[in-house]
Amino acid sequence: MSAASRKLRYAMVGGGRDAFIGAVHRKAAALDGQIELVAAALSSNPDKARASGRDLFLAEDRNHGCWQDLLADELKRPPEERIDFVSIVTPNHLHYPVAQAFVDAGFNVVCDKPLVHTPEQAQALVNAVARQNTVFGVTYNYTGYPMVRQMREMVRSGVIGAVRKVIVEYHQGWLATAVEASGNKQALWRTDPAQSGLAGALGDIGSHAENLLASVTGLEVEAICADLGTLGVGRTLDDDVNLLLRLRGGVRAVLVASQICVGCENDLRLRVFGSTGTLDWRQEQPSQLWHLPLGESARLLTRGSVGLCAAATQATRLPTGHPEGFIEAFANIYLGVAEDIRARLDGSQATTADYPRVEDGARGVYFINKVLQSSHSQDKWTLCD
Amino acid sequence: MSAASRKLRYAMVGGGRDAFIGAVHRKAAALDGQIELVAAALSSNPDKARASGRDLFLAEDRNHGCWQDLLADELKRPPEERIDFVSIVTPNHLHYPVAQAFVDAGFNVVCDKPLVHTPEQAQALVNAVARQNTVFGVTYNYTGYPMVRQMREMVRSGVIGAVRKVIVEYHQGWLATAVEASGNKQALWRTDPAQSGLAGALGDIGSHAENLLASVTGLEVEAICADLGTLGVGRTLDDDVNLLLRLRGGVRAVLVASQICVGCENDLRLRVFGSTGTLDWRQEQPSQLWHLPLGESARLLTRGSVGLCAAATQATRLPTGHPEGFIEAFANIYLGVAEDIRARLDGSQATTADYPRVEDGARGVYFINKVLQSSHSQDKWTLCD
Amino acid sequence: MSAASRKLRYAMVGGGRDAFIGAVHRKAAALDGQIELVAAALSSNPDKARASGRDLFLAEDRNHGCWQDLLADELKRPPEERIDFVSIVTPNHLHYPVAQAFVDAGFNVVCDKPLVHTPEQAQALVNAVARQNTVFGVTYNYTGYPMVRQMREMVRSGVIGAVRKVIVEYHQGWLATAVEASGNKQALWRTDPAQSGLAGALGDIGSHAENLLASVTGLEVEAICADLGTLGVGRTLDDDVNLLLRLRGGVRAVLVASQICVGCENDLRLRVFGSTGTLDWRQEQPSQLWHLPLGESARLLTRGSVGLCAAATQATRLPTGHPEGFIEAFANIYLGVAEDIRARLDGSQATTADYPRVEDGARGVYFINKVLQSSHSQDKWTLCD
Amino acid sequence: MSAASRKLRYAMVGGGRDAFIGAVHRKAAALDGQIELVAAALSSNPDKARASGRDLFLAEDRNHGCWQDLLADELKRPPEERIDFVSIVTPNHLHYPVAQAFVDAGFNVVCDKPLVHTPEQAQALVNAVARQNTVFGVTYNYTGYPMVRQMREMVRSGVIGAVRKVIVEYHQGWLATAVEASGNKQALWRTDPAQSGLAGALGDIGSHAENLLASVTGLEVEAICADLGTLGVGRTLDDDVNLLLRLRGGVRAVLVASQICVGCENDLRLRVFGSTGTLDWRQEQPSQLWHLPLGESARLLTRGSVGLCAAATQATRLPTGHPEGFIEAFANIYLGVAEDIRARLDGSQATTADYPRVEDGARGVYFINKVLQSSHSQDKWTLCD
Repeated sequence: MSAASRKLRYAMVGGGRDAFIGAVHRKAAALDGQIELVAAALSSNPDKARASGRDLFLAEDRNHGCWQDLLADELKRPPEERIDFVSIVTPNHLHYPVAQAFVDAGFNVVCDKPLVHTPEQAQALVNAVARQNTVFGVTYNYTGYPMVRQMREMVRSGVIGAVRKVIVEYHQGWLATAVEASGNKQALWRTDPAQSGLAGALGDIGSHAENLLASVTGLEVEAICADLGTLGVGRTLDDDVNLLLRLRGGVRAVLVASQICVGCENDLRLRVFGSTGTLDWRQEQPSQLWHLPLGESARLLTRGSVGLCAAATQATRLPTGHPEGFIEAFANIYLGVAEDIRARLDGSQATTADYPRVEDGARGVYFINKVLQSSHSQDKWTLCD
Repeated sequence: MSAASRKLRYAMVGGGRDAFIGAVHRKAAALDGQIELVAAALSSNPDKARASGRDLFLAEDRNHGCWQDLLADELKRPPEERIDFVSIVTPNHLHYPVAQAFVDAGFNVVCDKPLVHTPEQAQALVNAVARQNTVFGVTYNYTGYPMVRQMREMVRSGVIGAVRKVIVEYHQGWLATAVEASGNKQALWRTDPAQSGLAGALGDIGSHAENLLASVTGLEVEAICADLGTLGVGRTLDDDVNLLLRLRGGVRAVLVASQICVGCENDLRLRVFGSTGTLDWRQEQPSQLWHLPLGESARLLTRGSVGLCAAATQATRLPTGHPEGFIEAFANIYLGVAEDIRARLDGSQATTADYPRVEDGARGVYFINKVLQSSHSQDKWTLCD
Repeated sequence: MSAASRKLRYAMVGGGRDAFIGAVHRKAAALDGQIELVAAALSSNPDKARASGRDLFLAEDRNHGCWQDLLADELKRPPEERIDFVSIVTPNHLHYPVAQAFVDAGFNVVCDKPLVHTPEQAQALVNAVARQNTVFGVTYNYTGYPMVRQMREMVRSGVIGAVRKVIVEYHQGWLATAVEASGNKQALWRTDPAQSGLAGALGDIGSHAENLLASVTGLEVEAICADLGTLGVGRTLDDDVNLLLRLRGGVRAVLVASQICVGCENDLRLRVFGSTGTLDWRQEQPSQLWHLPLGESARLLTRGSVGLCAAATQATRLPTGHPEGFIEAFANIYLGVAEDIRARLDGSQATTADYPRVEDGARGVYFINKVLQSSHSQDKWTLCD
Repeated sequence: MSAASRKLRYAMVGGGRDAFIGAVHRKAAALDGQIELVAAALSSNPDKARASGRDLFLAEDRNHGCWQDLLADELKRPPEERIDFVSIVTPNHLHYPVAQAFVDAGFNVVCDKPLVHTPEQAQALVNAVARQNTVFGVTYNYTGYPMVRQMREMVRSGVIGAVRKVIVEYHQGWLATAVEASGNKQALWRTDPAQSGLAGALGDIGSHAENLLASVTGLEVEAICADLGTLGVGRTLDDDVNLLLRLRGGVRAVLVASQICVGCENDLRLRVFGSTGTLDWRQEQPSQLWHLPLGESARLLTRGSVGLCAAATQATRLPTGHPEGFIEAFANIYLGVAEDIRARLDGSQATTADYPRVEDGARGVYFINKVLQSSHSQDKWTLCD
């Protein structure tokens, strides 16, 4: 059976009962009927892992208690049963060992962000992917929204002229109080340096903001001036991020991200100001993109309407006015990965599939590292290489 | 293998290549990993049906050229292979024969709306479902939105006092021009009385508006004053609906629905005015529900936030600020149907599952019939029984 | 001193302490430095009238206890002192006698709406104004908003093609409870047929909705189907208005107006659906006008921006983004009246000044009358002459 | 005639034909019928000054060709004719000499912002006002909005707990192109260091942002990290402002202000994040204030509604839903000044009148100075005294 005539098979590492993002990955992968879950190691606790797998109707012999068993088992299976890729949705500290092991074993990977803890790990992973020539997607899921892709196309094709200024902001309120002290599982690991890494809000949502900015504008960060805060009582990692940035060509940018903004839900917004127009997108109204052209009335572009670019249109499932959301955007990342994997199964090397790659993940890790460096510096600007 | 330990199996009738709503049903059914498509007759054209089935990786022996073959084949299969239900997503005129045949054969059914063409057909179907004791869901999908369920709970539990007035409006623009003349497939059958029935916009979107009003308020329509228009050139069915209504207890309501409103996308809005508060919901921002309590500031309730009712919370997959959309709401209808089917497989008779039933579909058919009667009358009020 | 080199002088009848709309008229008249208040009879209670006049720094000899004294005094004064016009801002039942007396005496008049109680009074006033050749403005103030004028221009010049449908709605909540029973002065007279006339919400805000519809579209009402409600406990006049309309050429319209919509503030909205575009304006965001052109992205037109029509631009004081409001719109009505009065003082007969005239007020009275007739009829349609 | 029984009299310096802000001051002063314009020197060009004064119906003998003549003439007049205050609405470079001269002569002053060019001038003016014991208002007009006053009250009374973070942004687009090169009068002087001072957008709108932040939170700026840009071709002054701030107690703030944001109108927004709530106000929807309380639904507070603080209520003229705007907010500054002047005329020393004083203007000048210093520094933080 050729790859074109069957669903792709994947395994999941992490994402057991009570986890948030694993379930999102599964729904995203299932949505379009292109991908099926066939194996898993859903928790670092073997009992919980297996119980979680039974919830998902997994076959007993592919429902593993740890990711090492999953990997070993897959390597023993014949190609026609073997997974086409693995999805890694564990807390951050496990991204690196799991991803490295699966890449080294020749598997394609989808990994959540931030990719890994250190630039060294990131570089090792980039090297491994290049060596193995595998597919490696990073779920910077916000780039999966059709109107983000429309925005990218408009910025890069010059519809708003030269980029002059960028503001990206990401406000949440869920860490406004010390929820980690009352047993919120996600808050617990996200505020724990051992699991989350040295960056708190910076790693969790600041990295999304960086990727969105970079993905849409294509401009690298050249210099950073950071003021990070830790406002939650008893917390050690940052929960409030304030950055002045200089992008390639001296373009000024402001990046603010915070998880202590009471009442803010998932308020990610990107504004790009060009010499002949402005674009403004908000994640909470993801089907809308404001375009303010110089000297004309503001225009509200909507997902699914006529005249959008191919990348936006291809990422769209429903007509205008029929809301798509977070899962659909997430699913677009999976569709991009699947396109690349199918191409390889068919013997070609797809390069146009639209999803964030291991290099994007690595760039995010470098960025986090440089922001932390700036936050400890008294110099206004910390330069990026 | 008990029903609790496997996915439910379903077949689809209609929804082949180029169809709109069939793909939505499939994504909705797939989303939560609870239901799998195993058989189909995807088009009234056998070649197209089979080609469409291959796109979906269907097994050859369950990929049928017509719904009669599908039904016959299922009846021959052993219970452990047989479908748990069929989804009917054809143009309207086929809803009745297909649904009647599957119910008569003892199958559970999901059917799109408007249910059937005539009150007589509706009654026959209601009778058959009662006789067979099968599960029958109608995809009035807008009632699947969590904030619609929240609104229903607030209205019915008296949070806004006695209902005094209701306004429901549904504006689209896609039939503003004679798109059916230029080959738009959906426009073609929707404007064709042979396929669509005697109601145009009234049947397509007016029926959604009626169901939303009825579902949220629980108030039956007692009298109707209708003014229907047909504005599209060369069109015979209505494309513009304007109704004054009297609901149970004399409550006044206004229902406007139109498909000639240039630039309107899928602008369904329900406002319920009570003696101590107002509720306002718009489909295009489905995660928001405005509550205007008497003498206090307006409150914006959002999906996923604390304090919502159980029905809203259970219909929610993501935290606040992470948009859910049309497919997720649709999937909630499927989850309701699945809950009922699993209960029957387990030998119980679930009654609390949250989805529109055959009686709701029948009530919609009666409503359409009475609106058409009023539109031909010179009396102000046409009474409902 | 020619009329061009001085402010216009006016007197006010009604609008004393505690009154609402009189103070608005005074601010509107004062705003642009073109008009000054020099005389008044501010209440039907002589003591209150004079106390109110002292609040406004009126000269003692022009601060009258009743409107008859004001009129008599003005007639005695030399032309260079005499008022250029009178503003009538009393409860409705006094509009007619005061307006008729001042017109008969040759004075220009600004009068609040609804103009008078009966079509016969309205006709008498129209005749008197024609006979006396005086200026007579009616403060349908919403037509003073620049973006309403822009909308009018766009509709009438065919930017949205042929008008196909109109929806006008006006929701308030201030009469949701029996506030008149607790001494709210305005609620008291507005719910009293002796002062307010036979129409409640219909006269107060339904008349604004009618005028807005008529002013923007230029289409007369040909037939009315009315369902009026009285929901406030102990109330005799309508507080809830639901109308189906047919406009000239059979165009369908819906007009809903209600004062029992808890939490609604002053939610007047007009949508005009044309064959090639839609226009949508809301009073609570008066500087915005949505234009949805066929096949293109929605455009948000804003007051003060380039490309608007002359009527909108001339009615604008501030750049875009600097909010203008209710008083500024009201002031535009006064500027229109002032332009006409100055023209007459200079010997010309201005005809292009932009304000609602006595005929517009009379049409509103006829409309109210026909709506009341329809509300008592069992026929679907009550025809207008 | 006591001060209580007459309008206050004022003169205007600057604000002739074609000027923007002078006309706004005049409308604001006129709006409430408390203040009348009796004298002026409306331009630095004597002919234009006098022509402008005739447009306003000024008496010939009080319509001056230069401000020195105005001052000399006023000093000669008897108290019962003399102005109660002067309004200075010239380009920035004239604020200081005119204000100093009038204060030194014992007159009360209203002056536009930024107050003066240098901290030394600001200090001299503060000293003079203290010495003369005169009233001196600075038209930071945005603090005149009722909902800004409501926000101030809520922040200062602890409704949102301890202030944790502040974001203030002010985006305009009118200097996105080199409009000064095509003769736009206001652009010409605003981009000219000789008239505007050393700060461009920083002085024009950054100063408003600073005042809004300071006025609402009451927190002084302790340290500044500035990145200023000059993007307009041929421009020497900044048109793009990006600041990280530390407020008293180490509270982090971000201030961004720019005039090159194509399509932005007058987009001033202030968000204050507290430990138990968030407040969010936008100038373009000035009657709305979002309050996001911890653990509860978002609330939309509206001007004129019940439950607002006295400062907001007293600054309100119209019921909810009847938009007030920029001029009404501006007029509230004038009412504050007038209250203080009337108090002094009556022999008391009012201290509670609500308007920005000379000290607020001076603080703004210090702020601008420190921002410019930081923008030339390589240190991350420039400390304020």
